Order: sequence, then structure tokens, then C-alpha cells
Amino acid sequence: MDYNDHDNGQLQILSWRHLLLSRTKLKRSSRTSALLSGFAMMAIVELELDDDTEVPDNLLICFGVCTTLLVFVHLLALLISTCILPYIEAVSGTHDISMVHDSPHESMKWCVELAWISSTGIGIILFLAQLGLLVWVKFYCLSINTAIASTCIVIPGAIMFVAFALLFYKSLMKHKNTRHSEGLKELEDELRA
Amino acid sequence: MDYNDHDNGQLQILSWRHLLLSRTKLKRSSRTSALLSGFAMMAIVELELDDDTEVPDNLLICFGVCTTLLVFVHLLALLISTCILPYIEAVSGTHDISMVHDSPHESMKWCVELAWISSTGIGIILFLAQLGLLVWVKFYCLSINTAIASTCIVIPGAIMFVAFALLFYKSLMKHKNTRHSEGLKELEDELRA
Amino acid sequence: MDYNDHDNGQLQILSWRHLLLSRTKLKRSSRTSALLSGFAMMAIVELELDDDTEVPDNLLICFGVCTTLLVFVHLLALLISTCILPYIEAVSGTHDISMVHDSPHESMKWCVELAWISSTGIGIILFLAQLGLLVWVKFYCLSINTAIASTCIVIPGAIMFVAFALLFYKSLMKHKNTRHSEGLKELEDELRA
Amino acid sequence: MDYNDHDNGQLQILSWRHLLLSRTKLKRSSRTSALLSGFAMMAIVELELDDDTEVPDNLLICFGVCTTLLVFVHLLALLISTCILPYIEAVSGTHDISMVHDSPHESMKWCVELAWISSTGIGIILFLAQLGLLVWVKFYCLSINTAIASTCIVIPGAIMFVAFALLFYKSLMKHKNTRHSEGLKELEDELRA
Amino acid sequence: MDYNDHDNGQLQILSWRHLLLSRTKLKRSSRTSALLSGFAMMAIVELELDDDTEVPDNLLICFGVCTTLLVFVHLLALLISTCILPYIEAVSGTHDISMVHDSPHESMKWCVELAWISSTGIGIILFLAQLGLLVWVKFYCLSINTAIASTCIVIPGAIMFVAFALLFYKSLMKHKNTRHSEGLKELEDELRA
Amino acid sequence: MDYNDHDNGQLQILSWRHLLLSRTKLKRSSRTSALLSGFAMMAIVELELDDDTEVPDNLLICFGVCTTLLVFVHLLALLISTCILPYIEAVSGTHDISMVHDSPHESMKWCVELAWISSTGIGIILFLAQLGLLVWVKFYCLSINTAIASTCIVIPGAIMFVAFALLFYKSLMKHKNTRHSEGLKELEDELRA
Repeated sequence: MDYNDHDNGQLQILSWRHLLLSRTKLKRSSRTSALLSGFAMMAIVELELDDDTEVPDNLLICFGVCTTLLVFVHLLALLISTCILPYIEAVSGTHDISMVHDSPHESMKWCVELAWISSTGIGIILFLAQLGLLVWVKFYCLSINTAIASTCIVIPGAIMFVAFALLFYKSLMKHKNTRHSEGLKELEDELRA
Repeated sequence: MDYNDHDNGQLQILSWRHLLLSRTKLKRSSRTSALLSGFAMMAIVELELDDDTEVPDNLLICFGVCTTLLVFVHLLALLISTCILPYIEAVSGTHDISMVHDSPHESMKWCVELAWISSTGIGIILFLAQLGLLVWVKFYCLSINTAIASTCIVIPGAIMFVAFALLFYKSLMKHKNTRHSEGLKELEDELRA
Repeated sequence: MDYNDHDNGQLQILSWRHLLLSRTKLKRSSRTSALLSGFAMMAIVELELDDDTEVPDNLLICFGVCTTLLVFVHLLALLISTCILPYIEAVSGTHDISMVHDSPHESMKWCVELAWISSTGIGIILFLAQLGLLVWVKFYCLSINTAIASTCIVIPGAIMFVAFALLFYKSLMKHKNTRHSEGLKELEDELRA
Repeated sequence: MDYNDHDNGQLQILSWRHLLLSRTKLKRSSRTSALLSGFAMMAIVELELDDDTEVPDNLLICFGVCTTLLVFVHLLALLISTCILPYIEAVSGTHDISMVHDSPHESMKWCVELAWISSTGIGIILFLAQLGLLVWVKFYCLSINTAIASTCIVIPGAIMFVAFALLFYKSLMKHKNTRHSEGLKELEDELRA
Repeated sequence: MDYNDHDNGQLQILSWRHLLLSRTKLKRSSRTSALLSGFAMMAIVELELDDDTEVPDNLLICFGVCTTLLVFVHLLALLISTCILPYIEAVSGTHDISMVHDSPHESMKWCVELAWISSTGIGIILFLAQLGLLVWVKFYCLSINTAIASTCIVIPGAIMFVAFALLFYKSLMKHKNTRHSEGLKELEDELRA
Repeated sequence: MDYNDHDNGQLQILSWRHLLLSRTKLKRSSRTSALLSGFAMMAIVELELDDDTEVPDNLLICFGVCTTLLVFVHLLALLISTCILPYIEAVSGTHDISMVHDSPHESMKWCVELAWISSTGIGIILFLAQLGLLVWVKFYCLSINTAIASTCIVIPGAIMFVAFALLFYKSLMKHKNTRHSEGLKELEDELRA
């Protein structure tokens, strides 16, 4: 049926765009994750503390947990990217839109979103938290005021990040809905004509 | 209507160019931010101060605040880039100009500008400020004259950066206006012909 | 025979896609491996321990073995990538689908899979393990609680990675089977028509 | 008018090539600047001097001033690149030669040249100077002869760089003039024919 | 002669593919070599040993010789790549298959192979050996068991690398022979038809 | 004249290929130089020597001179690349073969060769020499035998590099001559036909 074929074609184009979106999301995630996990590792390798340091135990526990969590989150994003990207790129590299359903980006949509959220959302907020804790560990004995002043930037900063993430999500949803209702209107216009 | 279609096409081309502009702005921002935030992190990780250092508390507070602010500003640019870029690239990757309104670069214009300004404008000036403070922290006990001489370059440098930014903005506005009036003139010529 | 030629063409297209898949798998593997083995090397080069450290021998043995294994696994992935990639890229660079059987990606399929699994699967889990051991070595004398808290993240993290790998494998198999049965159905429809 | 249109087309092609030239100049500048400013920052962060060092104050002042100037010059090139490049790339990405006048590379020609000269000309000579001063700071107490021998290479080297820059500029001017007179001759030949 | 021309064309296509193969081999070699020689240099620069260290002389000799050899082998690959690649890329950049004999990749085949083998074969095995020796130097005074355990992985690892290299070579030869006899068969079929 | 036009076209194609060759030579040079000068700088920044070190003055002078020379040679290659590349890329980016004479790669041929030779030829041999001297400085007090053993690899290595360079040059000349005489023969054949 002709109408059906047209619908199918529309679906394929939509799916192809989802494929491109998944690919760029994973690519961006893997690059950001590689960068930030590298800095986090460097922070723990190069940190030098004397054996008789006065830094309290709780602070060190927070710092250790935050760094481990940070590296874990970025490794997860890296793992997912390295697993799924080759399958997506093998399809996108053929430039053959009819092969779009061979790509696993639809059935593994949750993986792509997980990688993207853990790399950008959670990962960047944890990185900011680690910076705050690093300043505390570094300046605890030297100048406690520096650590306090630094925290006064980190906390509103983290709130701003969360606010931006929510705003971005809302804006994205609104944009999608607008596009959707516009699409419906176009369809109606077509049917009337 | 034919005239309407032509207008629509013009609008699409204009929007497509805004899309390309947003994409390159975000790409450049994310690259510059990754580089500069890396150096800022390195400066705080590798800084080594003795526990009985004579560096005054106020200097350390300034240094800590400046570094935290610097990393925050660049993380913000990185966060925005990683969030919006995949949606823009998924559209620009189809090379289909009629899909331009599916890209969120118009509805999230303020995000793109925020990322760009925090990465280039604020970020680079803060980086220069951090360099000035780093020289003070490093050379405070060794040679106070080095720190003073270095500041004599940083302060006019920062003023030059602000001046350049204003000049650039003015130049951009003038360029836009010239293009606009030229566009109007071309339109008039077309209407007369 | 016409039917035979069509089959042959289908086979070539399938083989070409396997070629693209192998190429991207090897490329991703070599990039991830270069990154992670670099951090692992850095961890062992920059680790500084006093000669009279109280860190127990067993911990150091685990750390040494884990790092060596990690670098070995990533070097293996790097070796395989550097060996096979030029032969695959020389074929994929001709953009001539009929030359697909000159590429060694079919006869050396097990090598490609070995590189990919050692880089992503084993490599990333070992990296997480090394992070856990590094925190133990670093914080053993300072704060044993930090090391314990950190391990509480690393162990469920490693389990999550293994779980994800299995889930991903299952999902991939299911996707393949779905595609296969759809392919059979399409064939049947064609035969009936 | 037909003749006018031809002229216009020639002008557009010329302007398009200026656009490509500006783009590559800014790209090269930003890459060189990122690299060299990174090394300069590293030199000041990782420099370790004892509090009772015998290095004279004047030497430290020179070193501090040189490093600050070097980082400032490269930050300026980076700032200009990040500001102007997106506007140029948005035009060059359309591959539509008639839009060439929308790019700000003509009206901001002085900015492009400033970025290019501060990155290559001044930036590389300052980097060489910083290397010379770094050797003095490092080897002042150890072996003053090393510092003197090293300076004997840096000074003729810096002179060679300036000489090359002048020679390059002269060669470029000569090349432009030759092309210009050839262009005139071709025009004359066309008019005669 | 028509038949001759066909043969000539076949030869050109074959030579073009050798050109692509040489290009990718050199590119991969230069990237791998730059990475590994960088880590080897880092290992020797950042290695810190006390003047009264108990590490035996023979161990240090092995470590020094291994590092020097490693850097030498990778510099050789880098030198060959930087020398030959421009000549190959200038030809491959024209996309004109008839110019294939202007590229030096046939007459300098042994250089390309030498660069490739020294970068991948010898270079990676030496890197593994250096890792083994580095662990010995680092842990000799701390925990000799760590060094022994680490060596128990390095030695079978090195054997595995050599075994893989031989297997890969055999597999490649077999693949070439299969392709060759298939080519002959196709030729025979063509002649019969 | 038709014959003349054909000649002109041949000349343009030849010149275009020289342009591509110059471009890749400069690109490779700038990448190799950036890498090696970075490692050389790192070696001098991170080198730590006690004030009462027993390393003889002559050794330090050699090391200082070698490093300065090495950085100078690579900065020269970087300076030339950053200066000339934009002009070559602006022409090669138009993909218009008739504009080949606007590129300065012919009139500045000596610059391109100078950059290429200083980056690959002299630069890599100096890097090997610096490695030899670094081992001497590092191991002079620890184990003089290590330094001697290491030198036993560096000296034949350097000779091998020079030998390879000469062999490569001879091979290139022979290749050029062969191509030239083949070109003449083809011309003769054309004239006879």
C-alpha cells in the first residue's frame, strides 16, 4: 500500500535521526568522560599527604568516596560508548537509510541515555563536588578560610547545575511538544487540501 | 502562496546558518573549556605549600575562590555543550535544510550564548587572573618584586581583554547592521525591478 | 545465474557491514586502551612510597599484579589493532564493495573480538579494580576508613559492570534474532508475491 | 550589467579565499597557542625553588614577567580565535560563495592578524626567551656555565627567528606583487583579445 | 593493446591498494610510537631514586638499556613515517589512480615494513619488558614479592605477544594464498567463458 | 596555442602535487615538533638535581646545550609551519587547480624544506642525543655502568639514523630519476604515435 510505504519512509527517517542523535550523544559522552575521569585519577595519584596529617577522617572518606564514584560513573559511560558505538557506526557508515533497523540504538535506548546522563548530568556535578573536597583537603591545615570561601562557590554552583539540567529538560520537552503539535497541524492541512 | 514559500525558504536558510553558528560556538567553547579547566585543576593539584608558609590568608582565599570560579565557569560551558550539541548535530548531520526547526538552537539560544560567553569571555579573563594570583602564591616568600612586576602585566592585560570584547561586540553589531541595511536595499532594488 | 548473483551481492553487503563493524571496534578499542593504559602506567610511575612503609606485602602484590595485567590487556588490544587495522582500512578506503573479501576481518574475526573484549570488557573492570587498590595503597596509613568506604563502591560497581556486559550481550543476541526472523519473514513475503 | 557581475564574481572568489585564509590562520594560531601556553603554565606550576635560594631577584623578575607575557599573548590569540572563528565557520560551512560578505573576516581583519602575529611571531620568540630564562633559574646554583652556554644558543636563535619573520614577510610581499602584476598582464591580454 | 591495458589497470588498482595499506600502516605506527615513546620518556624522567639506593647495578643497566632501546625503536618508526608519509599522501590526495607509480611506497617497501614492525612488533614487546623492569626498580626495596608476581605475568604475556605475532603472520599468509588461488580460478573461469 | 595549454595544464598538475606535498610535509613537521619539543621541555622542567650534586659541569653543559638546541630546532619548524600553512591551505581548500600559483609553496620551497629537515632530520637525532645525555645525568651518581650501556645503544642508533636519512635521500633521488626517464619515454612514444 502506497500510504503505508510513505508512513514507513517517515518512520525510517525519524529512526535515522534517532540513530544520529544516539551516536553524537555517545561520542560526546565518551570524550567528556575520558577527560574528567583522567583529571579525577590524577587528583588521587598526585595527592601527597603526610602520615601525621591533621586532616579529619570524615573529610578523607568523603574525598575518597567522591573520587571513586566519579571515576566509576565515567567508566560506565566509557564502557557503554565502547560497546554500542561500533554497532551504530557500522550502520551509519553505510549511508543506507533502509538499514536503520539493524542498529541497536532503539532497543538499547536506555543504555544510551544512561551513558549520557552519567557522563554529563551526574559526572559533572560530582566533578564540581570533588573540586570542593580537594580544596578542603589541600587547604585544611593551611587556611581553613580558603576552603570555606571555595565551598561558598561550589554549593550554589551545584544548585545552578541541577537547575540548568531541569530547565534544559523542560525546554527540550516543550520543544518536542511544539514540534509535535506543529506536525499534527501540518498533517491536518494536508488532509484538508 | 509562492511569495510566502520564498520567504519561508529564506527563513530556513537563515535558521540553518544560525544552527551552524551555534554548533561551532559550542564546539569551540567545549574545546577551550576542557583545556583551560584542565590547567586550572593541575595548578591546584600540583601546588605544594609547606604547613608553616608565610603566604597571607587573604591571598590564599583569593586564589582558591578564583580557581573554583574558573573551573565552575568552564564546567558550565562543558555541561551546556554536551547537553545541546547532540541535538544540533543530529539535525545538521541529515544535511536536510527543511528539518532545521527540529533543532533546539533557537529555543535555547540563551544557553548557547551563556556557554560561549562563560567559556571565552569570563573564562579567559579568570584564567589570566588565576595566573596573576599563582605568581603571587609561588613567589611571595622568594621575591615579592617578581609578583609585583607580573601583576603590572596582568592588570593592563585584563583591561585589554575587556576592551577587545567590547570592541568585538561593537564591530559585530555594526557588521550585522551594515548587512541588514544592504539586505533592505537589495530588497528595494528587487521590488523596483 | 541471476539468483546466485543477487545472493552474492547480499553476502557482499553483509560482509562489508562486518568490515565496518570490525574497523570501528578496533578503532574504539585502540583509543580506549591507549587512554587507560596511560593512566595505569602513570599510577605506577608516580606512586611514591617510603622504604619503611607499613603497607602490607599482600596489598602491594595485588596492586602490582593488577597494574601489570591491566597494561598487558590494553597492550594486547593495541597490538591487535595496529596489526589488523591497516589491512581493513586499505580495503574500506577503496570504497569498492567487491573487494570486501580481500580484507582479513572475516578470517581474523576472533582477533578483533579478542581485542575488543580485552579493551572494553576485561580492561575497564581491571581499571576499576586498580582504582580500588590504589585507594588502599594511598590511604592505608592515613585513614583505613577511606579505603573501606571506597571499596564499598568499587565492588558493587564491578558487579554492575559484569551485569551490564551480560545484559548487553543478551540484548545484542535478541536484537540479532529479531532481525533474523524479520529477514526470514520478508523473504517469505517476497516468495509469496 | 554583465561586466559588473563578472567583477562582482571575481571579488566574491577573492573574498572567499581571504575567508579560508583567515580561518586557517585562526585555527593554526589557536592550536599553537594552546600548546605553548600549556607548557609555559606547566613551567611556572612545577618550578620548585627553596625559600633560601641564591637565585638573584632580577633573574626571577625577568622569568616571572616573561612567563606572564607569554601566557597573556597566547590567551589573547585564543580569545580572538574563539570569538571570530564560529562566525567564519558558519559561513564557510554553507559552501555558498555568495554569502561571503556575511562573514566578519574582512571587517575584523586586524583582529585576525593580531591573533596570528601574537601567536606565531611574538609568542614563539617569547617561548624561546622563557626557555633561556628557565635554564638560568634551574642551573644558577648548579652550573653557571650551562646557563651561559645555553644563552649562546638562545640569542642567535631569537635573532634568526626575527630574521626569518622579516624574510618571510618580504617574500610574501614579493609573491603578492608578482601575482598582482601577472593578474594585470592577464587582464591586458584579455582586453586585447 | 587492449588486453595489456586491462592488465595495466589491474596492476594500478593493486598498486593503489598497496599505497593505501602503506599509508595506514605508517599512520598507525607513528601514532602508536608517539604514545609509547612518550610514556617511556616519562618513566625515565620522573623516576626518582636515592643516591644510596640498594637496587643492584645489573637491574639498573637492564632498565636503562631497555628504555633507550624502546625510545630508539619508536623514534625510528617516527622518523620513517615523517619521511615517507608526505610523499605517499601527496599522491593519495590527488585521487588520481594513474599517478600511483609516482609514490615511493613500492621502492621503499622495506622502510614501511621496518617502521611498522619496529613500532608494533618490537616496540610493544619492549614496552611490556620495560613495565616488568620498572616494577622491579620501584618495588625492589619495598616488596620483592610484588616484583616477582608481576614478572610472572610479564613473561607469559611476552610469549603470548610473540605467539600472536606468528599466528597473525601465518593467518595473513594463508589469507593471501587463498585470495591468490581464488584470483587464479576466477581468471580461468573468465578464459573458459 | 593548444600545445602550450596542454603544457600549462601539466605544469599546473605538477605544481598542485608539489603543493599537496608541501602541505603534508609541514603538517607532519608541526605535529612531530610539537610532540618532541614538549618532551624536551618536560625533561628540563622536571629534572631535579641537588645543589651539591657530583654531576660534572661538562655533562650539564652538554645537556643544557642539547636541550636548548632541540627546542630551538623544533620551534623553528613550528614557526615556519604556522606561517606558511595558512597560505597553502587557503589555496588547497578552494580545490581549484588553476589557482595553484597563488600559493607560496614554490617561492618558499627552501622554508618548507628547512622546516621538514629541522623537524625530522636534525630534530630526531638531537632527541636521541638528549635521551643519551639524560640517562648520564640521571644515573651518574647511581650507576655509571647504566649510562655507559645506554650510550652503547644511542651512538650506533644515531649512526643508523644518519645512514637511513642518506639511504632515504638516495632512494628518493633514484625514484625521481626513474620517474623522469619514464616520463621522457612516454613523451617520445606520444610523439612517435
